[in-house]
Amino acid sequence: MEIYLDNSATTKPCKEAVDKMIYVLENVYGNPSSLHTLGLNAEKEVTAARKITAKQLGAEADEIYFTSGGTEANNTAVFGAAYARRKTGNRIVTTAIEHSSVYESCKELERQGFEVIFLEPERNGNISAEQLAAAIDKNTILVSVMMINNETGVRLPVDKISKIIKKNNAPALFHCDAVQAFGKVPVKPSKIGADLLSVSSHKIHGPKGVGALYIKKGTYIKPILYGGEQQKKIRPGTETVPLICGFGAAIENIGSMSENMNKASLLHDYAVKRLSEISGVEINSPDDGLPYILNISAVGVRSETMLHFLEKQGVYISSGSACAKGKKSHVLTAMGLDGARIDSALRISFSKYSEISEIDTLAAFLQEGMSTLVHSK
Amino acid sequence: MEIYLDNSATTKPCKEAVDKMIYVLENVYGNPSSLHTLGLNAEKEVTAARKITAKQLGAEADEIYFTSGGTEANNTAVFGAAYARRKTGNRIVTTAIEHSSVYESCKELERQGFEVIFLEPERNGNISAEQLAAAIDKNTILVSVMMINNETGVRLPVDKISKIIKKNNAPALFHCDAVQAFGKVPVKPSKIGADLLSVSSHKIHGPKGVGALYIKKGTYIKPILYGGEQQKKIRPGTETVPLICGFGAAIENIGSMSENMNKASLLHDYAVKRLSEISGVEINSPDDGLPYILNISAVGVRSETMLHFLEKQGVYISSGSACAKGKKSHVLTAMGLDGARIDSALRISFSKYSEISEIDTLAAFLQEGMSTLVHSK
Repeated sequence: MEIYLDNSATTKPCKEAVDKMIYVLENVYGNPSSLHTLGLNAEKEVTAARKITAKQLGAEADEIYFTSGGTEANNTAVFGAAYARRKTGNRIVTTAIEHSSVYESCKELERQGFEVIFLEPERNGNISAEQLAAAIDKNTILVSVMMINNETGVRLPVDKISKIIKKNNAPALFHCDAVQAFGKVPVKPSKIGADLLSVSSHKIHGPKGVGALYIKKGTYIKPILYGGEQQKKIRPGTETVPLICGFGAAIENIGSMSENMNKASLLHDYAVKRLSEISGVEINSPDDGLPYILNISAVGVRSETMLHFLEKQGVYISSGSACAKGKKSHVLTAMGLDGARIDSALRISFSKYSEISEIDTLAAFLQEGMSTLVHSK
Repeated sequence: MEIYLDNSATTKPCKEAVDKMIYVLENVYGNPSSLHTLGLNAEKEVTAARKITAKQLGAEADEIYFTSGGTEANNTAVFGAAYARRKTGNRIVTTAIEHSSVYESCKELERQGFEVIFLEPERNGNISAEQLAAAIDKNTILVSVMMINNETGVRLPVDKISKIIKKNNAPALFHCDAVQAFGKVPVKPSKIGADLLSVSSHKIHGPKGVGALYIKKGTYIKPILYGGEQQKKIRPGTETVPLICGFGAAIENIGSMSENMNKASLLHDYAVKRLSEISGVEINSPDDGLPYILNISAVGVRSETMLHFLEKQGVYISSGSACAKGKKSHVLTAMGLDGARIDSALRISFSKYSEISEIDTLAAFLQEGMSTLVHSK
């Protein structure tokens, strides 16, 4: 039995994506930059995937830059914007609950002399538009705020940011890390006024190792990689044709986001109900978060202990962000949760393929874990 | 008919690599950073590929950092070394014939205030140890020289560099771009005294989108990407497990480099003989270059014209570096070739799968191209 409820860490590639990759690996091996037909054929495949990605984002194909994943997309946006605008101002506004690829990039910029404001979330885990309005000033060159938090599912007020930037006369680019949102809720950079927006393939049943950065037409950012003529020199290097095409196939396979969302809501609400009944379990995610992500604490049992207990039963969840490899969550810490809750935090994350019966199994084993592990401590 | 003689641009993934990727995509989908078994299984696969890569390089597994390809490996090495050592000195020594991912990175460092010496090749296309010795001084913090030039096959004197650095008391790290050499000649960073060395998967029948940077144990370079805890924070981001494993499989499938080299030499020498017989054809590659790469000029016919003529016959070669997308070769220019030869340059590049009969076909069509195209100009 394998019950995989760690879909915010990564997802199983869908058949459509795998099939497309196999086709490309076996048949379209040219270098997209080569001038002959084999190159052209590869370039056509990349272009097709670029159009699919653009369409999903409500963007133009030439606003899409493929990267090696969410981390590179976020780094390119944050460093690229900061370096491009460093003569205009020195302030960067972000949050204390960003994914580490934004958070640590901003920490590095802070070490380089930028003034970085890491907005601390309120107790509900969210950042308010008021906090953003108070922080974004005329010296602000970059605002980087995620759409959905990867640990709690909190929905941040990203639709307010471009208006605040305008109102406060800030010369800022707005970057949105939409990695957890993409494929689950509509992600349209032009609608929220984002200049830069990051997405990743392996969170939506595509392969690991590819993502994309949306760069609004006319927006200049300084590249972090230098080399050949690929991707308008913003992201040089031979395109990873098989992964890009697999990503495209995964996007085409998203299906109806609203139907998927309805199902995720059912799963989420059922999980909240079942897990809340277990003594010692507390819900950390907000009621109005993205239903695909449910953060709880099984107070009294360390996250890793419970995680390993559950995996012995074939149930796979996580203790927080996979990228943190078990390090204490900076997100839950920033939310002001007490130590006991942080140390026992568990993240359950659904996909469109998750089932109600899997939650029953999870609940049963979590219950068993609580009764055997709390007392054995 | 498809005669692919553009293997320095990219190679067709071998069956072993494709099969491994399919296996991983379908069966090992966990995030290597996840703490549960599915994560662990993915991490084991990455570790296995890391060991294979390390073994091939005569290195330790913890000296190998997977990147999204040669471009990222080269950028990481060049920027990482320059920024790590900027307080020690300001000079960078490289050559005018590096791949664009080193060349353009160094150009960017020059714009940032570093003093960069781009050594110009002699007429034979090579850089001499004397040139290097004269350029590397006590202020030099980085020497970046490729092992094999990607356009001409010239073998650069990389085995002399670490001695020169020591002799000249330079506080320099030595980076070697071994992308074209890897899998064809023995590439052992410790043997040539390289601190940093880049390799790529898609030049050796592995997939596009993955490469590796060797970083000698104890050597610190500043990362260019920030994020999670992956790869000792030198290269964060979820590892592209399928590509990394495909790369590993391709390395295991290299076979006997000396047998492959003997075959490549036969192909090379035969091609030189056959093509030299064609009126107007000049050989640009040196006699003692890597036999896998043969640069010629079909004087009187523009590279692209000939390339398209040949591809209509099913023969695929290139006009130079694919990454340059048809831009005038900076390598042949630096060699001091005249305009007519640069404009008509063609690169023929073999793989271990190439055959003598393919050269006969190439020669026949090149001959035909010369007789029909030169006069029709």
